[in-house]
Amino acid sequence: MYALSWCLKNIISQCCKDTLFLLYVRSAQAFHSSLDGTGYLFSSDVLATVDKYSNDVANCIIEKAKRMCREKGDDEVKVEVIIESGDPRDVICRVAENINADVLVMGSHGYGLIQRAFLGSVSNHCAQNVKCPVLIVKKPKSSSSATGTK
Amino acid sequence: MYALSWCLKNIISQCCKDTLFLLYVRSAQAFHSSLDGTGYLFSSDVLATVDKYSNDVANCIIEKAKRMCREKGDDEVKVEVIIESGDPRDVICRVAENINADVLVMGSHGYGLIQRAFLGSVSNHCAQNVKCPVLIVKKPKSSSSATGTK
Repeated sequence: MYALSWCLKNIISQCCKDTLFLLYVRSAQAFHSSLDGTGYLFSSDVLATVDKYSNDVANCIIEKAKRMCREKGDDEVKVEVIIESGDPRDVICRVAENINADVLVMGSHGYGLIQRAFLGSVSNHCAQNVKCPVLIVKKPKSSSSATGTK
Repeated sequence: MYALSWCLKNIISQCCKDTLFLLYVRSAQAFHSSLDGTGYLFSSDVLATVDKYSNDVANCIIEKAKRMCREKGDDEVKVEVIIESGDPRDVICRVAENINADVLVMGSHGYGLIQRAFLGSVSNHCAQNVKCPVLIVKKPKSSSSATGTK
């Protein structure tokens, strides 16, 4: 959300003829791979519930993002929504190529060293694999809280 | 140079009241650390020559960059030049903080997997450590040459 608001304020405002694609990736993979790995079996009810929940989250977030775009003010931003499932790293790269994006704007969790080592960085992967310029926007930490855990 | 030209075309044109800082980092470190590691001794003449050469390269590149900014056309871009020595990763992060940059624009070599493993990626390091948004601009490969070595 912070990356979107930064983008709306600093990039989109000056070139309102562009289309803004909102991409949400449901990381269904984590759930399915734990299913494969451990041998647990879930009833179709459970799967359907998880699926519905995941859908609701996606819709909720996309609605919030669309509201932010509408509230931008004078210049109407043309918005398109893409919701996909899979590994976010692969999906983001594929979609960026498919829509022939001029620039890919993405947030960054700002994980610490250890989390990055295990999880890898989505933004790092995309910056290295997407052909178009990649803009990585981090939510600024309040300087008071940053001193504690860094 | 490609990142600068992309930046001039897509970012600067719409907000010409901003100041563009051109940062060039002379990676003097590689030379000095090879000196420490292997025990070779260079005369002050050699060191002075290397230093002069490194200076000439920096000036030449910065001149070219400034020319690109001047040639932009109607809107004059306010340009400031910073030349520093050291590990580019550290210097870029430090300077970005010092000048309180709104956005850090940087090119990317697009090294392959093996080169990245040894050299690390400057852009990746900066994207993770600089607080402001980071825009990574890669020079597009011509599709014909990309097929060979990828």
